[in-house]
Amino acid sequence: MTLRPVLIDGQWRQANAESQFQAFNPTNGDCLSDIYPVSSWQDCDAVLNAASEAYQQLQQVTRQQIAQFLNEYADLIEANSQSIVEMANLETGLPVTPRLADVELPRTTSQLRQAASAALNADWTMPIIDSKNNIRAMLQSIGPVAVFGPNNFPLAFGSASGGDFAAAIAAGNPVIIKAHPSHPGTTRLMTELAFKAVQNVGLPEATVQLIYAMSNDSGLKLVGDARIAATGFTGSRPAGLALKNAAEKAGKLIYLELSSINPVIVLPGAVVENADTIANDFTNSCVMAAGQLCTKPGLLIVPDDASADKLVNTIAEKFSSAAVGTLLSPVSAEHIQNNINTLIDGGAIELTQASLEESPRFCQSNRLLSIKGQQFIEASELFQTEIFGNASLIIRSKSVAQTHRIIEQLEGNLTGCFYSHSDGRDDDAYQLLEPVLRQKVGRILNDKMPTGVAVSPAMNHGGPFPAAGHPGFTAVGMPAAIKRFAALKCFDGVRQNRLPDILADRNPGDIWRQIDGRWTTESL
Amino acid sequence: MTLRPVLIDGQWRQANAESQFQAFNPTNGDCLSDIYPVSSWQDCDAVLNAASEAYQQLQQVTRQQIAQFLNEYADLIEANSQSIVEMANLETGLPVTPRLADVELPRTTSQLRQAASAALNADWTMPIIDSKNNIRAMLQSIGPVAVFGPNNFPLAFGSASGGDFAAAIAAGNPVIIKAHPSHPGTTRLMTELAFKAVQNVGLPEATVQLIYAMSNDSGLKLVGDARIAATGFTGSRPAGLALKNAAEKAGKLIYLELSSINPVIVLPGAVVENADTIANDFTNSCVMAAGQLCTKPGLLIVPDDASADKLVNTIAEKFSSAAVGTLLSPVSAEHIQNNINTLIDGGAIELTQASLEESPRFCQSNRLLSIKGQQFIEASELFQTEIFGNASLIIRSKSVAQTHRIIEQLEGNLTGCFYSHSDGRDDDAYQLLEPVLRQKVGRILNDKMPTGVAVSPAMNHGGPFPAAGHPGFTAVGMPAAIKRFAALKCFDGVRQNRLPDILADRNPGDIWRQIDGRWTTESL
Repeated sequence: MTLRPVLIDGQWRQANAESQFQAFNPTNGDCLSDIYPVSSWQDCDAVLNAASEAYQQLQQVTRQQIAQFLNEYADLIEANSQSIVEMANLETGLPVTPRLADVELPRTTSQLRQAASAALNADWTMPIIDSKNNIRAMLQSIGPVAVFGPNNFPLAFGSASGGDFAAAIAAGNPVIIKAHPSHPGTTRLMTELAFKAVQNVGLPEATVQLIYAMSNDSGLKLVGDARIAATGFTGSRPAGLALKNAAEKAGKLIYLELSSINPVIVLPGAVVENADTIANDFTNSCVMAAGQLCTKPGLLIVPDDASADKLVNTIAEKFSSAAVGTLLSPVSAEHIQNNINTLIDGGAIELTQASLEESPRFCQSNRLLSIKGQQFIEASELFQTEIFGNASLIIRSKSVAQTHRIIEQLEGNLTGCFYSHSDGRDDDAYQLLEPVLRQKVGRILNDKMPTGVAVSPAMNHGGPFPAAGHPGFTAVGMPAAIKRFAALKCFDGVRQNRLPDILADRNPGDIWRQIDGRWTTESL
Repeated sequence: MTLRPVLIDGQWRQANAESQFQAFNPTNGDCLSDIYPVSSWQDCDAVLNAASEAYQQLQQVTRQQIAQFLNEYADLIEANSQSIVEMANLETGLPVTPRLADVELPRTTSQLRQAASAALNADWTMPIIDSKNNIRAMLQSIGPVAVFGPNNFPLAFGSASGGDFAAAIAAGNPVIIKAHPSHPGTTRLMTELAFKAVQNVGLPEATVQLIYAMSNDSGLKLVGDARIAATGFTGSRPAGLALKNAAEKAGKLIYLELSSINPVIVLPGAVVENADTIANDFTNSCVMAAGQLCTKPGLLIVPDDASADKLVNTIAEKFSSAAVGTLLSPVSAEHIQNNINTLIDGGAIELTQASLEESPRFCQSNRLLSIKGQQFIEASELFQTEIFGNASLIIRSKSVAQTHRIIEQLEGNLTGCFYSHSDGRDDDAYQLLEPVLRQKVGRILNDKMPTGVAVSPAMNHGGPFPAAGHPGFTAVGMPAAIKRFAALKCFDGVRQNRLPDILADRNPGDIWRQIDGRWTTESL
């Protein structure tokens, strides 16, 4: 059987392959029939050359065309939604409904359209004009961007259609799509549509290119290549750190979303007021999508007293009775078990029982573990082992002071939540703990779980290392996410007719610009 | 003789020294009498602990207090300006007037006051409110910042008083000052005043700490230490890259300003119209401060024709007759000569003559070299050797097309300039060349030299690697420079009384906030 072609420089062509791979159907463990190439460096080299040229051509492309492309692509995705969600379901086991068709695909097209809107209104460019000195600055495109997407959102974070893709394109950069090996078919379908949109709108053909896979060495070489400007990576910490090292050694930007256990702190008053809601919300957030979400709450800190015992027991029951989701990869179940073993070897007690079903599907029963606060404090690194799946760890804290010490030992995370009583009785504890937790996370939540990541301009899906590579940027939310793939450019004494239209005296649209310290849509 | 004490955790105390050093007087080569310690790791460790604690205390400090500190410090600098400029002159050889007293010190205090103003109006925090989802985000402080300043601006870029210091403090971070070994006395005087301001305003005492020097190993350890949030470094490429590597391996931020040859392109029409101005401006920019400026034009690209011959000859004459400045360090003259030798070995012709004066002062005669465009294209790495001093290289380009190829081979630079005819005859060439040059630089200039770096909100003193570490940020200009030392924080569903005042419904001042896509100073 032939290998699926890669997309290089506007041509779907046979890869220069050094090996091949197939994806799995997680619901039955079957190997899927399509065969995909692992490209040699020769393909990477060709892709990089074409991306460089496309980037030069993109200098002449207007923001209207970029927006048109993103909208056209979103339209094409909707017109082909059925085949997309079927393929994504086949490769990931994620249910077509409610997940893929009703949530993830609409999120994906909405995100592309928000990126289109951001490309058009140029909000991400942050134009700033110092009229007295005739110095003007804005963010502009940066160059070819490589996108390595994760396995858990084949559409909304997929390399060919997710937030990194949309953001990099919105800024005017060509994208090199590296498929995730667990869903190459979905990435292929998306790239086909993206490329169709490229052609329909008349963008440079190498604005979008696809390589399914490459050796680790080629991957490291790619992110540090002189022709690359930046990389977006979402995935495991070891892979991310290896790429980070390779990119940064060469002075290249890389934006990472690596790992996060998303601590949730239940303050004493919340146990009294909202135990049932918390038990429900927490369980749902942990077992939804089999817990394979970057914002799954992996750590629940609750008081170590009798009232909280009931909450913990309720959660354990709910974990045991909740439906067991399908895992994404053949090694997921083993990874989860290994990490649970690590926690148990460290002294954690299991509150649920492993009950493996007799099924070829990839799965692991919902698992809940527990430790005392002091145990965490004594081995905080071990107890921050991330379990990417439907398992979570409860810490029983003796006091607010102990919770404070626990928080102090946390690594960087995407999110941190507080549940507290509505009447304000937990406010003293909150005021003590929040400043410390805030330093450890990118997003602070009140009275809700972190799993939902709204595509909002005020979202931060990022955080201190190792949750993300740079704590100043978000991977979700337009226009903010676009700024990652941009470079600051200053025009000092540049003549009017040579300025980007966004920086000229006359405002070319209703673009927000900061002129002499004042934000306005007016002309100068 | 005793060693000068370091400032650790609010105490001027004897260092735990592993060795010692003295600075030089560049105007006569004398070793200065004050002796400074090279701190052991024990001092670094103490400084890091104190900075961590100070950072926690800074959470309770208002932006009004931060602004008050920066203004107070600026006042103290002015009140003590005479001793400061005398010490800086002694250690750097930079003239008291016009340079230190009339330009650099006022620039320094103005920059501190601009940072105070930015701290107060919170422009750098970029508040953004999504009212429908009740999601709000802003930039906030990041944690302890280490500042390694350069040798060439003891005040305006000095570790204890320059842009990195002001920016890090304005964001609410404690600063660990690492003195440059060429001007420890100036850094001491500045730190004394900064610490006095800390005490006057009642900031945590370890908001400002000083270590004069440390071993290379300790420096590498410091920037990657868990207690550090970010580092600002301005200096040589080898030192900067070593620190970058150490910091980034540990997942720590580091902002670098490394090297730049600042290409200046003279288009054919400008030769006709403005040869004299260009010759004057270029020479002044190259010999000012003995060329020891990050934005010194190290590369001048001029046509290879008879009219430009005259321009080049004029420049060579001006170089030969211009006063020879004093270099900052005993090894500067040798470094310059070595780099000139590299260029000559590569085929460059020298248009001036080395004429070493009989003087113990640190100096090197003004030097001008020349190559053909084709030579550059064939050995572009060699001919981009940065000469940090009063020497520059002219490239004679055969055509606009050849200039295009030259620009394509440039590394990342801080600046790129075009001189062109005022009647627009060079505009076609400009339109062809500018998009390529813009990708290589942080700041594009028209018809002026890049040496002036206005402290403007629209300035970009940064650029693509290796000019800077991240092309999205500037080291000069408030509030933009402050954003480097900040982390994005999102508040998702957080109760009104728990929000930072900047993000609450009621606007706490006249703070610009983007509410639902619209910039406003109104309340929600």
